[in-house]
Amino acid sequence: MQTLRENRAAFERLRLRPRVLVDVSKLDMSTTILGQRVSMPICVAPTAMCRMAHADGEIGIAKAATTHGTCVCLSSWSTTSLEDVAQATPDALRWFQLYVYKDRVVTERLVRRAEAHGYRAILLTVDTPLLGKREPDVRNRFELPPHLTMANFVSEGPKSEGKQESGLALYVASLIDRTLTWEDIKWLQSITKLPIVVKGIITAEDTKIAVEHGVSGIMVSNHGARQLDGVPATIEALPEVVATVQLMNQNRPADKQVEVYMDGGVRRGTDVLKALALGARAVFVGRPVLWGLAYKGEEGVFNVLQLLKDELALAMALAGCVRVQELRERPVVVHET
Amino acid sequence: MQTLRENRAAFERLRLRPRVLVDVSKLDMSTTILGQRVSMPICVAPTAMCRMAHADGEIGIAKAATTHGTCVCLSSWSTTSLEDVAQATPDALRWFQLYVYKDRVVTERLVRRAEAHGYRAILLTVDTPLLGKREPDVRNRFELPPHLTMANFVSEGPKSEGKQESGLALYVASLIDRTLTWEDIKWLQSITKLPIVVKGIITAEDTKIAVEHGVSGIMVSNHGARQLDGVPATIEALPEVVATVQLMNQNRPADKQVEVYMDGGVRRGTDVLKALALGARAVFVGRPVLWGLAYKGEEGVFNVLQLLKDELALAMALAGCVRVQELRERPVVVHET
Amino acid sequence: MQTLRENRAAFERLRLRPRVLVDVSKLDMSTTILGQRVSMPICVAPTAMCRMAHADGEIGIAKAATTHGTCVCLSSWSTTSLEDVAQATPDALRWFQLYVYKDRVVTERLVRRAEAHGYRAILLTVDTPLLGKREPDVRNRFELPPHLTMANFVSEGPKSEGKQESGLALYVASLIDRTLTWEDIKWLQSITKLPIVVKGIITAEDTKIAVEHGVSGIMVSNHGARQLDGVPATIEALPEVVATVQLMNQNRPADKQVEVYMDGGVRRGTDVLKALALGARAVFVGRPVLWGLAYKGEEGVFNVLQLLKDELALAMALAGCVRVQELRERPVVVHET
Amino acid sequence: MQTLRENRAAFERLRLRPRVLVDVSKLDMSTTILGQRVSMPICVAPTAMCRMAHADGEIGIAKAATTHGTCVCLSSWSTTSLEDVAQATPDALRWFQLYVYKDRVVTERLVRRAEAHGYRAILLTVDTPLLGKREPDVRNRFELPPHLTMANFVSEGPKSEGKQESGLALYVASLIDRTLTWEDIKWLQSITKLPIVVKGIITAEDTKIAVEHGVSGIMVSNHGARQLDGVPATIEALPEVVATVQLMNQNRPADKQVEVYMDGGVRRGTDVLKALALGARAVFVGRPVLWGLAYKGEEGVFNVLQLLKDELALAMALAGCVRVQELRERPVVVHET
Ligand SMILES: Cc1cc2nc3c(=O)[nH]c(=O)nc-3n(C[C@H](O)[C@H](O)[C@H](O)COP(=O)(O)O)c2cc1C
Ligand SMILES: Cc1cc2nc3c(=O)[nH]c(=O)nc-3n(C[C@H](O)[C@H](O)[C@H](O)COP(=O)(O)O)c2cc1C
Ligand SMILES: Cc1cc2nc3c(=O)[nH]c(=O)nc-3n(C[C@H](O)[C@H](O)[C@H](O)COP(=O)(O)O)c2cc1C
Ligand SMILES: Cc1cc2nc3c(=O)[nH]c(=O)nc-3n(C[C@H](O)[C@H](O)[C@H](O)COP(=O)(O)O)c2cc1C
Repeated sequence: MQTLRENRAAFERLRLRPRVLVDVSKLDMSTTILGQRVSMPICVAPTAMCRMAHADGEIGIAKAATTHGTCVCLSSWSTTSLEDVAQATPDALRWFQLYVYKDRVVTERLVRRAEAHGYRAILLTVDTPLLGKREPDVRNRFELPPHLTMANFVSEGPKSEGKQESGLALYVASLIDRTLTWEDIKWLQSITKLPIVVKGIITAEDTKIAVEHGVSGIMVSNHGARQLDGVPATIEALPEVVATVQLMNQNRPADKQVEVYMDGGVRRGTDVLKALALGARAVFVGRPVLWGLAYKGEEGVFNVLQLLKDELALAMALAGCVRVQELRERPVVVHET
Repeated sequence: MQTLRENRAAFERLRLRPRVLVDVSKLDMSTTILGQRVSMPICVAPTAMCRMAHADGEIGIAKAATTHGTCVCLSSWSTTSLEDVAQATPDALRWFQLYVYKDRVVTERLVRRAEAHGYRAILLTVDTPLLGKREPDVRNRFELPPHLTMANFVSEGPKSEGKQESGLALYVASLIDRTLTWEDIKWLQSITKLPIVVKGIITAEDTKIAVEHGVSGIMVSNHGARQLDGVPATIEALPEVVATVQLMNQNRPADKQVEVYMDGGVRRGTDVLKALALGARAVFVGRPVLWGLAYKGEEGVFNVLQLLKDELALAMALAGCVRVQELRERPVVVHET
Repeated sequence: MQTLRENRAAFERLRLRPRVLVDVSKLDMSTTILGQRVSMPICVAPTAMCRMAHADGEIGIAKAATTHGTCVCLSSWSTTSLEDVAQATPDALRWFQLYVYKDRVVTERLVRRAEAHGYRAILLTVDTPLLGKREPDVRNRFELPPHLTMANFVSEGPKSEGKQESGLALYVASLIDRTLTWEDIKWLQSITKLPIVVKGIITAEDTKIAVEHGVSGIMVSNHGARQLDGVPATIEALPEVVATVQLMNQNRPADKQVEVYMDGGVRRGTDVLKALALGARAVFVGRPVLWGLAYKGEEGVFNVLQLLKDELALAMALAGCVRVQELRERPVVVHET
Repeated sequence: MQTLRENRAAFERLRLRPRVLVDVSKLDMSTTILGQRVSMPICVAPTAMCRMAHADGEIGIAKAATTHGTCVCLSSWSTTSLEDVAQATPDALRWFQLYVYKDRVVTERLVRRAEAHGYRAILLTVDTPLLGKREPDVRNRFELPPHLTMANFVSEGPKSEGKQESGLALYVASLIDRTLTWEDIKWLQSITKLPIVVKGIITAEDTKIAVEHGVSGIMVSNHGARQLDGVPATIEALPEVVATVQLMNQNRPADKQVEVYMDGGVRRGTDVLKALALGARAVFVGRPVLWGLAYKGEEGVFNVLQLLKDELALAMALAGCVRVQELRERPVVVHET
């Protein structure tokens, strides 16, 4: 799995250029995303079916993120309904990750419910017209365990249907709309006032189209290397997306600046530093949050986020940066020679 | 074995550039090779002595390929006669792979029999004036097992002759014509109307000569890294062959366009995508077909081809390509930086 | 740990260009640093708490270095007081490594004591406003063992305070001055006449500022890859520092030439050769000295230095260099292609 | 040991460009070195103390090389006297490898004896003013076993003298002339009419000086990575030496053309092909010959040379080259991209 390796390896090919003798006694890691302040540029990516990892599930994750003052994304395929998550974390900064179903009535209802329950953005995943080939899921005939449900839906969850197949792959093939095009962004905009962030773009070409279609943000993502194998690491794709957005932002009003985020392979504070230095406004983490959840529920997630926060603070201090903004203003990162 | 490693590693150095929000509900993987439609751009390379792997042998492979609606190449050194294969798969799209024997009478008869039995092209292997050094074959004193024969010939099959030697290497040294030159292409054209595809070209220089000699197609191949070690991976050699052919095709009538194929190390749908994006009209697979054959005869081959077909379909969908033609029209593949 | 690997790997990416048929019967490895002659361009880097490795501790190291006629740096955090080291090695060429404490009275006293006891330079470590993340120290809840003290101070040494934390990290966080800036160099110059060498610079940008602030030397160092992970190997950073200093030295009087040293990953005579060829006036070694100390106290350190000295002599001879000066005058080192 | 690895790895970074449909029925691998015909461009490098590997020793090697019609070099440090080797192989094409002793009387006698006994060239090793650091030899306190002698000398062979040291390193340090310079080439020319080949040059700079001093040949060698570690692989150094010699040869009469050879890491026929394609007139092999000797004396050496010969023939045929000369006339080798 070339891309899974690359998501990590590409970070290690980048070199930091620290500056010394800077007063680092007062660090400010906070930033805003879509106008909302977060305590750090590290947020939680949407991951499906979290209650498989721990009974605390999506609510545990949302609580831990909220305690940290950062943003959490809820997957369409959560095992807790978006309403229950909202109720458990009323003050949370929550985004709703959307998969568009063939049944547009289902989809529309999902979006309206998210809007109604205080989710602040629609994170539209665009890299999953079909599910990537995940061989362990095939081997294990992946199914949602009987005691859990796709809680945002009344319909049944993924079943492997007695085949040597991933139940989730079958589910996507039968229910998710693979005819989705850029035109549908307009439809989405017509049914919600929420800002739209497209998740899964890794080329300058698509970035341009996305901005032209009025999205508010772009999440550079290869779905944690779970969709098309062979695509570049996200940290490698980030610069071309950032450059395209920066150019297009010049012609846009100050309050309509498109933001770029990234996820994929972020494991260390120095990874965050590198991503920010290459132009990401914030990073999102997937697996590490699940590892924390599996280990110790909400507390485990809290600890994982704390580790990353501490590491970022330390990395900023040792690099001589006191505000995240600075990271974009000087060459903190260079490619290996 | 530098080239064996490279045939795989070079694929992994290529990066895909997927496009999103393309309607991928209707994929068309079909294409034509030498004017014949195939259901997918994945065909079966010629491999010698298939009945060593499974009793289904060459007929099993041909049937599986035909069920899939794709092309199969029969080796000169098949353990089933070309007539028997033709009879068992009358509707198959079959090519005949030719080794030119010192005894030109034998060679001519072989070509005429292939033509008479409905093979659609002569795939002339040009990288084997002598057999490559295959150390396991030497160690094992490779011989054709007694119950099998080189079924296209009356003469005896490879024997190691009591020496610490590969019987096949001795066979080639004594029977195959190592004086073969481009002039002989003309001779071949004089004895058959079948289109000729040369197999084993990996340089622009030889490509030019081949096209000048009126071949219909070029198979970029290093014989699965079994001949000269140290040559580049075929996916690395492909671009220079494609560029040369494209240039020369400009001066040729529409119905005389030379086609380029490749084999070597294709194991995944994304490999096929990469090869097509770099200009191959179709890829051919060798070992994976034999693995399927060894595992479960015709059914195993069918499964291997199905796996590749499914993976290609998925890869196309996730890359945002709905027809194979598109792969050549936009930069789906780039080299790693 | 990317940088730890790189500190070694980057040396191995450099290629030597030896010259032959040079009379190498009389080698001269001596050089001067800050005007003091050393028998070889290999000195001892400051390392904290040496008595943890062996009872001979800092005195053992200083004696061994002095026997070899080279320079030794004493850490602020030595387990032997700077006075005791001075008394045990009155003729030694000693530098004092300074950490600046929040309590400037403590700091000033330290500097004045070093000056009073014959230390010849202040080696100001600038890469440690906070301690790097050293996971083994966290896991082991690193503390100074009870029988040892931070002998230059009356205050207590690092305690992990019952937390799952490195005691040293807590110590640094509470006591070391993370507000330190370039302005403080002036303060330091106001309280001592000793030349100041800044340790921990790896960019051209900071080099320029350092020279402008009147430092006498720059130690290219990443603290043995113990501070910010992800920074380049020091041998990779060296050239840009050297180039900057060389340019600025052109405008400075002959007796005010700034010198460049390096440490990090030096393990072989050929490493020294490479560093010198890239412009370092001398290299400093950290871990190898501690390994020698742990193995056999003062004698072990002596042996380690002897090994390096012998290897450098051999490397110079085989490279066709008879004086260290020559190494800078011809291209002894090139990067791999 | 960076260079030891590189001597092999650098070969694997080269790619062959084979041409097809060339009549390869008649290969000619023969060439001349210093005007003497050899049956193949593969000769035997000098290696010291061969009788440690097998009782057949230097005579066994010389006989095997002679049977193959190729050139063999006898080390100054042979365990068979040059006279005995000459007597056992009167028709051999033998070169004498010279180490220059501090005692020039000893050296002169050696050269005159070699000339008198039919050695055809003096192969002057210039990379060994001191012995490289060979850690196994140090650990094992290498000594010549008591039943063997440095048979070209009356003095004693290498003894470790009770020290933890390589006896050979001590031997070289005490007896070999490390004051040797290019001037001494003239002295050598004054005492012998034999052509001089300098062994151990890997830079363009030294190549130029060597040619100016009237040498007949240059052996690009890093002593099998046994002298200065960190130098480039010889196959990497070869091109700059070849380019320099080619330029200088243009101003020299046809019968005074300087020849370039190489040794280091040649293990396969394709390695020979690569070296020749990059301009070497012949390659020399060290370790493989010793392996053959250790395995089975003269016969083992014969087999090793046969293997290399067969592999070269096969590689030439598969690359479409029928004479070694052709290898230099077209781009058979390119660097990896
Ligand atoms: C178990 C798992 C489930 C995921 N589920 C979703 C999902 O439902 N929707 C989505 O857009 N992304 C999903 N992702 C992708 C993540 O949002 C994110 O892109 C990825 O995990 C980031 O890479 P990282 O895991 O290396 O941090 C999932 C990832 C994992 C590991
Ligand atoms: C066991 C085996 C037998 C082969 N026999 C032949 C043959 O008879 N004629 C031929 O032109 N190529 C032969 N090939 C080469 C294949 O046609 C093809 O070039 C190669 O297998 C493609 O690489 P792959 O195995 O990595 O897919 C053989 C390959 C293998 C592995
Ligand atoms: C155990 C240890 C303790 C160290 N303590 C200090 C210290 O107190 N002050 C300092 O400036 N550097 C300290 N260093 C860093 C060294 O001065 C030096 O920069 C580094 O060890 C050089 O790399 P090397 O160990 O690869 O030779 C320490 C290094 C080690 C390994
Ligand atoms: C055991 C051994 C002994 C050697 N002795 C000598 C020697 O006496 N004189 C010399 O010039 N080179 C000597 N060499 C170097 C060889 O001549 C040659 O440069 C080297 O072995 C070539 O590399 P290869 O071993 O990878 O083929 C020796 C090499 C080995 C391995």
